[in-house]
Formats: sequence, C-alpha cells, structure tokens
Amino acid sequence: MNQTIHTLLNHRSIRSFTNEVLTEDQINTIVEAAQMASTSSYMQAYTIIGVTDPEKKQELAEITGQSYVKDNGHLFIFCADLYRHGILASDLQKQDMLPNIENTEHFLVSAVDASLAAQNAAVASESMGLGMCYIGSIRNNIKRVDQLLQLPEHVIPLFGMVVGYPDKQPEQKPRLPKRAVYHVNEYNKNQTEELRSFDHTIQDYYKSRKQNSRLDSWTDQMIRRFSHPMRMDVNEFVQSKGMNKR
Amino acid sequence: MNQTIHTLLNHRSIRSFTNEVLTEDQINTIVEAAQMASTSSYMQAYTIIGVTDPEKKQELAEITGQSYVKDNGHLFIFCADLYRHGILASDLQKQDMLPNIENTEHFLVSAVDASLAAQNAAVASESMGLGMCYIGSIRNNIKRVDQLLQLPEHVIPLFGMVVGYPDKQPEQKPRLPKRAVYHVNEYNKNQTEELRSFDHTIQDYYKSRKQNSRLDSWTDQMIRRFSHPMRMDVNEFVQSKGMNKR
Repeated sequence: MNQTIHTLLNHRSIRSFTNEVLTEDQINTIVEAAQMASTSSYMQAYTIIGVTDPEKKQELAEITGQSYVKDNGHLFIFCADLYRHGILASDLQKQDMLPNIENTEHFLVSAVDASLAAQNAAVASESMGLGMCYIGSIRNNIKRVDQLLQLPEHVIPLFGMVVGYPDKQPEQKPRLPKRAVYHVNEYNKNQTEELRSFDHTIQDYYKSRKQNSRLDSWTDQMIRRFSHPMRMDVNEFVQSKGMNKR
Repeated sequence: MNQTIHTLLNHRSIRSFTNEVLTEDQINTIVEAAQMASTSSYMQAYTIIGVTDPEKKQELAEITGQSYVKDNGHLFIFCADLYRHGILASDLQKQDMLPNIENTEHFLVSAVDASLAAQNAAVASESMGLGMCYIGSIRNNIKRVDQLLQLPEHVIPLFGMVVGYPDKQPEQKPRLPKRAVYHVNEYNKNQTEELRSFDHTIQDYYKSRKQNSRLDSWTDQMIRRFSHPMRMDVNEFVQSKGMNKR
C-alpha cells in the first residue's frame, strides 16, 4: 500500500483541534492542491473563502451549532460559483449565457467542481498530518451565510471545512459493505442483506465506542434523519441566487 | 513536499489508455478509497457502477462522443443515491421520508457525497500510477444512461470516470490565479485583472502546446460554452426520478 492510499484509508473526521493556526504556506498548499482537481470543461466553477474574522467565525459557529467552526486551525467555505464566467462578457453575451447559468445542469457542475476541489484540500491536509471535517450545517441558515460572505448572484455557499491539528483521534467509522455501494453493469436493488449486516456492524460500533456510546443502527439513524423535513428553504434560496431554476 | 501532495499537484486528465485492464485488486482499492471519503451525516448517498459489458460501453461511448469511454482499463459511473435509505423502512416511514428525499438539500448532499468519493477514487488511481478522466458527457443523454444502468427512483447518474494505464502524458493545464479562486472573509467581485492575466496565460498555453494547438482564451471558451443552451433536460429528468423537486 502506498502512502497516499494509506492516508485515504485512514480518514476520520476531526472535531477538536489544538489552538495552533495554519501557516500561510500550509493554506497555499491546500488551495493549490484543491485547484489541481479535475474541473468540468475547464469551468473551475467554485470559489473558496477562508474565514479568519473572529466575529464571522463566531456567527458561523452559532449557525452550525458547532464550536469547532470557531476553534480550529483554519476555516474554509466552499462555494458553487457561476458568477465568474460572465465577468468579462458583454451585457448581450451575459444575456445569452443565462439559460445555462440558471439550469440544473450547471448547478450540478458547480456543486461537483467545488466538491472535487474540496476533497483534494481534505486529502492534502491529512497528508500533512492535519485533521479536517466538512461542515454541511452552514446550510442551517444558508441565507445568512450568503450575506456574511457577501456572495453575488450565481454564487452559493455549499459547505465549510475546518482544518487543524487534531486534539483527539476518534475511532474510524465503518462504511457500508462494498457490495451495497459498488454494483456491476446495472443497479442492484436487492441490498437488504448487506444493509442488515451493516446495521449489526454499526450497532456493535456505537455500543463499543469510547465516546458517545449509544444504541443505534444505520437504518434507524437514516429513517430518523429523513423523517423530519430539513432545510426545505435551500431550493428557494438557490433559485433566488439565479441557479437551479430550469 | 510529500508524495501525496506531489500526486495531487501532478494531475492531468488522461484520455488515451493502453489496453491493459485493471485487476480486481486495483478496483477494490479504488472503491475502498472512495468509500472512506467524508460523507454528509453518514448518509453515503451514492452508488458506483462498474461497467464492463462491451455493448453498454459501446453505447456510452456513442452517448458521450468519446472513444476512451469504451477503450480504457475500467469505467466507473458515479450515481447520486437516495434510494438505499428507504429500503428497510416501512411504507409509512417511506412516506415520511419523502419531503427530504425529494428536496434540493438532499439532491445537493447526494451530489456532494458522490463527488467526494469520486475524487478519492481519482487520487487513489493516480497514486498507483494509473491515469483517469471524469466523463461529464454521460449527461448528453442522461435518460438513456439511467435506463442502461437500470437505476431505480431516487438514483441518478452524475458522471463517469475512466481509469487505466496512460498511453500518452498530456501537458498539465494551468489553473485560474489563486487570487481569483481563494478569497478572505468575503467574496471579492473584482477579479477582472486576474481573469485578464489568466486569459494571456491560456492564450500562450493553447498556442504553444504540442497537441491541438489553437488560438483561444479562457474567457472566450467560457462565453462560447455558456452561450448555447445545453442539457436543458437535466432538470426535468432529475425531477422525474423524484429528486430536486422542492
């Protein structure tokens, strides 16, 4: 196993950091690695915002309900960005570009581009001995995050990422059996056995883990999570920014 | 610079492969690395389909217009998947889960989850000396790809990935200046200077590169790309699969 595969397979999300902040060099390396990820038709349809302002970090910690959004080595917010592509275009050209900028296809392109860049940032960070965690809960109040970062039309905040020196090394969380996630030539709807076996694995994992030991299974967790409508405002917000409209 | 950073910074998309196919071991390692990527609230909201059937590969090559979709070491299709989460739920529970399954928030979650997994697969492949390229053009006929792979409701094909032994090593494609992509504390709309400078870089790059030398800039390329409405059917297709509806 090479060192990179070892880093990838050793991932765990870090939610507690020392108070050491990242150096400019570390931030540059992480951003450079993010930028070298593949990008759909060269669009590079994302922007990364580094948040260092203590008041903004405090408010983001409140929105997300996570203290480690304030206390970390660095905080990145990854945004889908279709604003940049029209900057040097004429008004007439901008008009012509609108059907694509506003459609679901390019909403998808920008979300995928941002995610590929983000995962390179994650891997780069972990390869340097840093820990990281994605922060999807900025979408608890996506409108407020949008205002805080002063995002223009056709740019939306997707998720955050905290990076820093790990204070604790949590146990690694098991993944679904490969047979549930990887299919050959066509989708295999018959995953009952794999899911039941995974539920047993997860019951044992939650029962035996040192922190936050509890009785739970993957299926129960998913049914609970999906049963309460959440972030139903994301659709309207995204459309109000001129994306995912048609 | 560690080996992983070196791999990340050395990325280039490979579109021509030898006829050596990946071993089961290589495919397993790539899928295992993909699965260890972060996943939003443990949802693991994606499925990877390995396509080996020559007839399916032929049809996918026709849909995408790319011969290397047929001729490669292995072809993966990454799908957003919110079908799995209801498999073990009762009919009543499934009903309760529907608002989340159908909303833009979880469409986004599944697209991001699939992309994080895919980028780990990309990095794992490149770390093993393989080359890869994302295939967004499966969305040229997303409905037909959906049928080919027999995807159930709440599962949609997002993009493909070809992996294999590189036949040619293309030059590396420059990225936008860091100042255009990385902002601090708030969005910087004033990117004109960076974009103009990048356009010069790209004009030189296209003029001097060995294959497909041409006169072009990033801005011109983007204006051309966005000015012709494309894949306007993705929105309706995604909604017909019960996602991104509210």
